[in-house]
Amino acid sequence: MIIILKEKPDQLQLDSLKKWLTRQNVTLHISEGVRQTIVGLVGDTSAIDIDIVKQWDIVDDVKRIQEPFKNANRKFHPLDTVINVSGRQVGGGGFTVIAGPCSVESEEQIICIAESVKASGADMLRGGAFKPRTSPYAFQGLRAEGIRLLLKAKQATGLPIVTELMDLSQIDLFADVDIIQIGARNMQNFEMLRQLGKCSKPILLKRGFANTYQELLMSAEYIMAAGNPNVILCERGVRTFETYTRNTFDIAAAPALKNLSHLPVFMDPSHACGVSKFVPSLALASAAVGADGLLIEVHNNPSCALCDGAQSLTTQAFDELMVKLRGILPHRYISK
Amino acid sequence: MIIILKEKPDQLQLDSLKKWLTRQNVTLHISEGVRQTIVGLVGDTSAIDIDIVKQWDIVDDVKRIQEPFKNANRKFHPLDTVINVSGRQVGGGGFTVIAGPCSVESEEQIICIAESVKASGADMLRGGAFKPRTSPYAFQGLRAEGIRLLLKAKQATGLPIVTELMDLSQIDLFADVDIIQIGARNMQNFEMLRQLGKCSKPILLKRGFANTYQELLMSAEYIMAAGNPNVILCERGVRTFETYTRNTFDIAAAPALKNLSHLPVFMDPSHACGVSKFVPSLALASAAVGADGLLIEVHNNPSCALCDGAQSLTTQAFDELMVKLRGILPHRYISK
Amino acid sequence: MIIILKEKPDQLQLDSLKKWLTRQNVTLHISEGVRQTIVGLVGDTSAIDIDIVKQWDIVDDVKRIQEPFKNANRKFHPLDTVINVSGRQVGGGGFTVIAGPCSVESEEQIICIAESVKASGADMLRGGAFKPRTSPYAFQGLRAEGIRLLLKAKQATGLPIVTELMDLSQIDLFADVDIIQIGARNMQNFEMLRQLGKCSKPILLKRGFANTYQELLMSAEYIMAAGNPNVILCERGVRTFETYTRNTFDIAAAPALKNLSHLPVFMDPSHACGVSKFVPSLALASAAVGADGLLIEVHNNPSCALCDGAQSLTTQAFDELMVKLRGILPHRYISK
Amino acid sequence: MIIILKEKPDQLQLDSLKKWLTRQNVTLHISEGVRQTIVGLVGDTSAIDIDIVKQWDIVDDVKRIQEPFKNANRKFHPLDTVINVSGRQVGGGGFTVIAGPCSVESEEQIICIAESVKASGADMLRGGAFKPRTSPYAFQGLRAEGIRLLLKAKQATGLPIVTELMDLSQIDLFADVDIIQIGARNMQNFEMLRQLGKCSKPILLKRGFANTYQELLMSAEYIMAAGNPNVILCERGVRTFETYTRNTFDIAAAPALKNLSHLPVFMDPSHACGVSKFVPSLALASAAVGADGLLIEVHNNPSCALCDGAQSLTTQAFDELMVKLRGILPHRYISK
Repeated sequence: MIIILKEKPDQLQLDSLKKWLTRQNVTLHISEGVRQTIVGLVGDTSAIDIDIVKQWDIVDDVKRIQEPFKNANRKFHPLDTVINVSGRQVGGGGFTVIAGPCSVESEEQIICIAESVKASGADMLRGGAFKPRTSPYAFQGLRAEGIRLLLKAKQATGLPIVTELMDLSQIDLFADVDIIQIGARNMQNFEMLRQLGKCSKPILLKRGFANTYQELLMSAEYIMAAGNPNVILCERGVRTFETYTRNTFDIAAAPALKNLSHLPVFMDPSHACGVSKFVPSLALASAAVGADGLLIEVHNNPSCALCDGAQSLTTQAFDELMVKLRGILPHRYISK
Repeated sequence: MIIILKEKPDQLQLDSLKKWLTRQNVTLHISEGVRQTIVGLVGDTSAIDIDIVKQWDIVDDVKRIQEPFKNANRKFHPLDTVINVSGRQVGGGGFTVIAGPCSVESEEQIICIAESVKASGADMLRGGAFKPRTSPYAFQGLRAEGIRLLLKAKQATGLPIVTELMDLSQIDLFADVDIIQIGARNMQNFEMLRQLGKCSKPILLKRGFANTYQELLMSAEYIMAAGNPNVILCERGVRTFETYTRNTFDIAAAPALKNLSHLPVFMDPSHACGVSKFVPSLALASAAVGADGLLIEVHNNPSCALCDGAQSLTTQAFDELMVKLRGILPHRYISK
Repeated sequence: MIIILKEKPDQLQLDSLKKWLTRQNVTLHISEGVRQTIVGLVGDTSAIDIDIVKQWDIVDDVKRIQEPFKNANRKFHPLDTVINVSGRQVGGGGFTVIAGPCSVESEEQIICIAESVKASGADMLRGGAFKPRTSPYAFQGLRAEGIRLLLKAKQATGLPIVTELMDLSQIDLFADVDIIQIGARNMQNFEMLRQLGKCSKPILLKRGFANTYQELLMSAEYIMAAGNPNVILCERGVRTFETYTRNTFDIAAAPALKNLSHLPVFMDPSHACGVSKFVPSLALASAAVGADGLLIEVHNNPSCALCDGAQSLTTQAFDELMVKLRGILPHRYISK
Repeated sequence: MIIILKEKPDQLQLDSLKKWLTRQNVTLHISEGVRQTIVGLVGDTSAIDIDIVKQWDIVDDVKRIQEPFKNANRKFHPLDTVINVSGRQVGGGGFTVIAGPCSVESEEQIICIAESVKASGADMLRGGAFKPRTSPYAFQGLRAEGIRLLLKAKQATGLPIVTELMDLSQIDLFADVDIIQIGARNMQNFEMLRQLGKCSKPILLKRGFANTYQELLMSAEYIMAAGNPNVILCERGVRTFETYTRNTFDIAAAPALKNLSHLPVFMDPSHACGVSKFVPSLALASAAVGADGLLIEVHNNPSCALCDGAQSLTTQAFDELMVKLRGILPHRYISK
């Protein structure tokens, strides 16, 4: 960390700053220039709060040099983390496809979709039981019943299941869930992250739609520092001025996060763009860019009977995508 | 709500869409143009999920006409909501100043600051006990002990207290807190919002740093629909490409939210800009723009003794700000 | 276009609005609901200015239904535009790679790089002669001399050249340039766009870093409406809160723009991310997502001699990228 | 400037980097830590291009310490710049109100509005002759004729006039214009900025809607470095995810820019928010925050006759705003 002081800093304030910094267990290197004095901090600066340092009036600016995350940092853990999800490997050169409906709606629906995506080559089943909805008047998911139906689909197909936890009070229901998903809106729910660090279940941590890579990695750090190393990062689009797609899919998140961290990085083009016709091409791009896996929403016809005309078309679109994905990933794809 | 269909829509899909819409308790008005068919929905569309409608392949676009919030909507409640906070009125033409430190650090600190801001004219005391911190290695607040110290400061000064709730498991500690603050990162923690709707305590709901006015009002709607009408909205800066200030303070949030809703709107320039020297001018702007109140962080010297040199300067800056605020608000300011 | 009126609109204002609208050559369809009156406009609304409509106090909101662009619109021109660039086809199923240095620096440099990228399979040569620089103190390009050197490289290699025009006063120098590039900062330089519409040279129009797809297409419309149909769109990153990469590469721009328009869409991952080590994976993603071509910056060692150690490594990285690109695009890649 | 090297940097690359840096006329201070080597540059780093430095593979990150602008920098010019605009002072403690219509439409219109805003206390008249329009089909302004009409209004009222230059080819028409406005879309039209630096006319430079404070100041630097010190900065809203207002009005731009620079800072709430009912409160906030002046769009009824019912209401709204502005600025307002 480097602290840039204003010209001619007040000596009393400088002494007070130096005293405070010394108590943070770092060594100070002070270089006095003609116009500017620069204080370099050597040691572990990850716990130093930049906002506190800026409170001294003599401080002009503060620049962080070391990343403030450690457990998630590739510098201290050069090899890719490989996570065992109920016997299947995530990360480390393979490619994992998680598919399923937005919401679990009924036993027939979830089992029908699970069987269909399995047949197409999906590795795991996703489905929402607890649904974060902007509106209190919108369908909030089947909740506990949704989890029960997902477990039935797991039993029927053997696919591990991934579903979202919205509040710690629900956690007992997740005992047999294979991956707990933390949604974008809870990425900085620090109390929840800390608690999830106390279990060993794999956590799929979605990037908040206005959070930086570093903030995502700091949230992973909460889980890891509390004892759970099994974190999968997931890009699902960031919020920008462009409204034609729901969010802007940040494809560079994959190489960037894999450069900064050893954790697996998944991509969720369905939530990112919100327009189903663009999802297949964004999924292919995600494979080409080097991500470790995909979350794909497989729609079922919301209007009526399950797995009918419109729906089978969409599971068909997923099937066609899987064929193309194998073309992009001939060497790393582990076929079922 | 208006649904714009693609040219020559498939009749089977159209029938399926019409059937689904009819089940949502709305009436359909269909106008067939040369190039485009438009379906207008009449009735309460607040529970209709635009993303579901977009799943029909024949749908080109969907535009919402009515706001999806009702309890928070000024159209259905033209008069300003006035909230009683332990005997003091918030909203409805007065102006409320809430001041205090970022974190409660010790009994001496919080009482010293409480007395100082009270003397300068602050209406309420703020202070963090549970602190949402990006880093797991940063100070997380005094937690339960912090609440205890705030209550001591309340007893000592008579100032109502405002402090942040981070997780529902902490709620019993908030029994004597006057206003529960929901931080920007929890604005869409829907399980928490729903629970807070079951009490009658005033809730200060901060806008998430990448959330729209409508999303903020939908979060207020969660609380209000569950039974608690006492919601204060708070703008605290939005995230943009500009990094010189911590966030971009969206001053138009005050007139915009007051136009859309009858709820009181507060402004938090301290968190928005993150640079203390700009806070006084942004606070004056907040008063001039027509907000109902302010949250101001009054710094204490982080380095050493409490209320020493550096700190008294800052409480002095707050005192000067209060003098200027009275100049901006001669008619509406209710002096103590 | 749909105009939503406020409740109980003033009749005088309504008459004035109707009179004005009628003069815009559209037909009005008025539906009066219980709470809201909606005015639908039928006809060509592309010239109607939403901001003017909003000036009537009785107007609550205005929603555009038809896209305001015509020449660039796929609805009116379903087949892909294929542009002939000095005998090579751009768009329509092929894939074009344009490579070269950021700035032309010397004859040796540009010819050395041109030969190298040609050998690796690049289709065209790019290089900056006029450089838009944030700082007036930074190198502004070799200007006229830079164009002269590019033309030498074209002569030496046969590669068509692409270079940026910054001001209309420079246009005579571009007579032998094959594609004129309009940079992101000039995407809404409407006087320049109009002038470029009067020539027939292919224009590579870069998306401004805070412009929507629609604004990009409206800028293409300026060129096309003035008579030049040869426009290539180019995504080069948008500005967001994330600062780890220079901009956020909007990969969905390719399928989105190709859905809205028949024009070819190129991707420029070099400028988008600004970090050379991420460029190859973003280039592969661009091919997988269905773009029509790539702009890749091939660095030369800025420190010393040309095409030395560091540089050859980088042309080597480009060569490796071209090999991988052929793997992603076995069917559509037209090998040299 | 500080360059952070990767662990164990290659000696050959380090030598090459050092050689290149030395040629930039800066002195190097190298501190080798256990994990990181840091190179500090002392001297004038404003011409050093960070992107070039990042091309060395051994460079991990580069941080700028000194601002890259000099002429516009308050550090080198502590006193406020005061600009003489045809006998009236801009900046330095006064407050200037520039008002007028979006576009000049006719002689009657512009003279009628000019007289009205003058009577209310406006200091200068604004009006668009050349209009930057997103759509080629929208009204592009009266162009040369518009300038002629503005000069007539100047003659009739004595108000200095402010109008936008869109292309250097138009500049001869601006000989009698008092302030040349550079619009947001041309803020980085560097060829134009350089040419405007060769005249001495005051330039009102609008911030691009996705440009940082530093980029705005670098554009001012282009004008100033070429010899024209008379630059007025103007905030007109930045582009964010919020669409309820046209742009997000960055009120902190006033104190931030005045802290970084000695140039006057104006605010344009009309273009920022695009919703006329919010303009008066945003204008009052602009005065309270410490800006040096305002641009206010005074609408004329677009539908029919000039200065009729609807219009006089709006000039009435401007008149009411001027009364309230004097309340906010009792000490600094120079009444006419």
